[in-house]
Amino acid sequence: MTASEIRALFAVASRPEVVSLAGGMPYLAALPLDVVGGSLERLVAERGLVALQYGSGQGDPGLREQILDVMALQKVHASPDDIIVTTGSQQALDLVTRVFVDPGDVVLAEAPSYVGALGVFRSYQADVVHVPLDAEGLQPEALREQLEKLRRDGRRVKLLYVIPNHHNPAGVTLSAARRPEILEIARRYGVLVLEDDPYGLLGFDGDPLPAIQSLDSDGVIYLGSFSKTFAPGYRVGWAVAPHAVRERLVLASEAAILCPSSFSQLAVSSYLSNHDWKHQVGVFRELYQERRDAMLDALDDLLPSASWNVPQGGFYVWVRLPAGLDAKAMLPRAVTQRVAYVPGTAFYADGQGRDHIRLSYCFPTPERIREGIRRLAGVLDAELEIQSTFGPGMGPTPAFGMGRVTGPSDSPSPDLT
Amino acid sequence: MTASEIRALFAVASRPEVVSLAGGMPYLAALPLDVVGGSLERLVAERGLVALQYGSGQGDPGLREQILDVMALQKVHASPDDIIVTTGSQQALDLVTRVFVDPGDVVLAEAPSYVGALGVFRSYQADVVHVPLDAEGLQPEALREQLEKLRRDGRRVKLLYVIPNHHNPAGVTLSAARRPEILEIARRYGVLVLEDDPYGLLGFDGDPLPAIQSLDSDGVIYLGSFSKTFAPGYRVGWAVAPHAVRERLVLASEAAILCPSSFSQLAVSSYLSNHDWKHQVGVFRELYQERRDAMLDALDDLLPSASWNVPQGGFYVWVRLPAGLDAKAMLPRAVTQRVAYVPGTAFYADGQGRDHIRLSYCFPTPERIREGIRRLAGVLDAELEIQSTFGPGMGPTPAFGMGRVTGPSDSPSPDLT
Repeated sequence: MTASEIRALFAVASRPEVVSLAGGMPYLAALPLDVVGGSLERLVAERGLVALQYGSGQGDPGLREQILDVMALQKVHASPDDIIVTTGSQQALDLVTRVFVDPGDVVLAEAPSYVGALGVFRSYQADVVHVPLDAEGLQPEALREQLEKLRRDGRRVKLLYVIPNHHNPAGVTLSAARRPEILEIARRYGVLVLEDDPYGLLGFDGDPLPAIQSLDSDGVIYLGSFSKTFAPGYRVGWAVAPHAVRERLVLASEAAILCPSSFSQLAVSSYLSNHDWKHQVGVFRELYQERRDAMLDALDDLLPSASWNVPQGGFYVWVRLPAGLDAKAMLPRAVTQRVAYVPGTAFYADGQGRDHIRLSYCFPTPERIREGIRRLAGVLDAELEIQSTFGPGMGPTPAFGMGRVTGPSDSPSPDLT
Repeated sequence: MTASEIRALFAVASRPEVVSLAGGMPYLAALPLDVVGGSLERLVAERGLVALQYGSGQGDPGLREQILDVMALQKVHASPDDIIVTTGSQQALDLVTRVFVDPGDVVLAEAPSYVGALGVFRSYQADVVHVPLDAEGLQPEALREQLEKLRRDGRRVKLLYVIPNHHNPAGVTLSAARRPEILEIARRYGVLVLEDDPYGLLGFDGDPLPAIQSLDSDGVIYLGSFSKTFAPGYRVGWAVAPHAVRERLVLASEAAILCPSSFSQLAVSSYLSNHDWKHQVGVFRELYQERRDAMLDALDDLLPSASWNVPQGGFYVWVRLPAGLDAKAMLPRAVTQRVAYVPGTAFYADGQGRDHIRLSYCFPTPERIREGIRRLAGVLDAELEIQSTFGPGMGPTPAFGMGRVTGPSDSPSPDLT
């Protein structure tokens, strides 16, 4: 499928009759919208001339102070001067890649890894090399071997991109024991660690682990976001970077957008000041845990031929399909049956992943999740039956049967979050 | 001066005791803040779940419809599908350059040109070649000669970057007669025109001229912005591009930021729906005209040794200094005398411009503008006296005398807007 085919498919998938287990959209109905709205009117009355004006390229100083409080929960060491506020943490990914990566450079990423990051690396013509992960996250021994091999091959490795907590899409968390080990290996090979952490505060059990950045603030760029703990519509994320790097990121951001939105920054800042945001994160955690449970129960009951991990936080379950099924080829048929997922191939730079799908439990209600899994089970059964009749790779020709879709979707691309 | 020196200088220049004629910040106190604030509370109550969520990479469909109404005043032909909403038009500049320009490619720009665009072109390692302008804007004959020369030299020219209306910094407007001529030349040499038009609706006399895009929607990418007609703090701009280009811009924008802020877009959309925005643009026009007059009067009275153009709209007067003075060397001394401007060198890629300064009249009151010009006249007199005593290039060593400034400014960089 081409990008525009995927786009057309997701335009169909965003119709209300489809249960989308594809998107990573947070469940915003759990937010106190009256509080959010009321504080905005006050914001304009009290600080409108700042909120509506150009701001600094690095970001609002008050918000940068507050970001320190958020990151303190994960023991990130920084001063407000080390922080640059960005248009979502996606922009931080883009800026870091722009500053560090030349065409042909290697970027190491987990296998699988976040589709939006792979898109950025690709857009700067980086060569993404995957390193396997397991239930404890990125495998140190595999990382060492890969770095050794790349060194022998004379390749230039610029970044190690890691999603340490409640991984997208794999759902795993890098264990506390492995964090210093990964860092030590990266340091030995002179590779900067890019720690992307949108889900760090969304763990269902216990306190969050200390960030990798907390172990070595010089060798790590940490990326954070308010998209999953508050609201993505403001597009407010940030990077914490060593001094020299941070200056270059600010200049790159000024070239790209002049400055992040003052209004968005002050809206987030006022929410953090005037609302018990830690309580709200707890509300989200409970909600997502309930939905994860609903998804795991439905998978147990309805999809026994597949296998999956048990995520301890975040939004995603990473499902291995029964042998011989192709997640990408099956997607149009799933959408016809009114259920959507993201095929595993989206999360690899090298064509792997046909045997996996990513299922999100963040947005639909528990009842809709179960209904979605029920539909998905029907699709799998039909695929398996066709396969047993005609042999592997002989599924029916994809057919939408839901009307022709042209042009880009006006809905979010669920594969991108 | 290095970038960080300029930054430190503008940190001082942003102090209240300095009259800044440097920044291009719109005078937002003229906005109906009560209307703006009240509509936001309603927005969250009525459409909060959309405004706070991820949106499409191309931008909100409703806002794209409304942008057509805005552009109709300049006869831009487009459908909503041709529009991509960006994080300020600066991001559109960045995306267009990212998509089209390879290192070493030539980008043609007026001499002088917008500093923020030059920064983008430089960041993609484009080779900026300037083409002179005069009171009627970009000179067609000079453009033709430059393109012919570049063709003979075997250079690859990708873009012709033009600010057609109330030019930043030169203050001139490309005449109606020259628009088709410029377009025809660009077409003949296969060069895409990048029409950057933040000030098109801010002309003081008569209706705006039809956009260059209105003459040939295939050969032109048009960039628009709400930063000067409404408020820059939302960071909402847009590009209108031919179909194939637009698709590539959307993909590039998704890689860079996933999607523009839904909240910002719906805030602008609700302002356009619920407020008489055309009347408000008229309010801004009158205000800026009054300030332009104040600046021209003060220049006439106090700076007779300099010369300048008479802008018919926009924010800027482009001033030629008396012979022998150096705008860049003089800036620290001007800031010490509590007046700031942007030296002309900022608006060239090739070191020209030492004999010019850009003065903005958009933000200070008429009284402050006159006081700023009075201080500037004092600085010029002192420079000229030193010069007549010691000869050219022998001014005193720059000295701030206003305390040491370290680190990046938390204020907007006034040279960037």
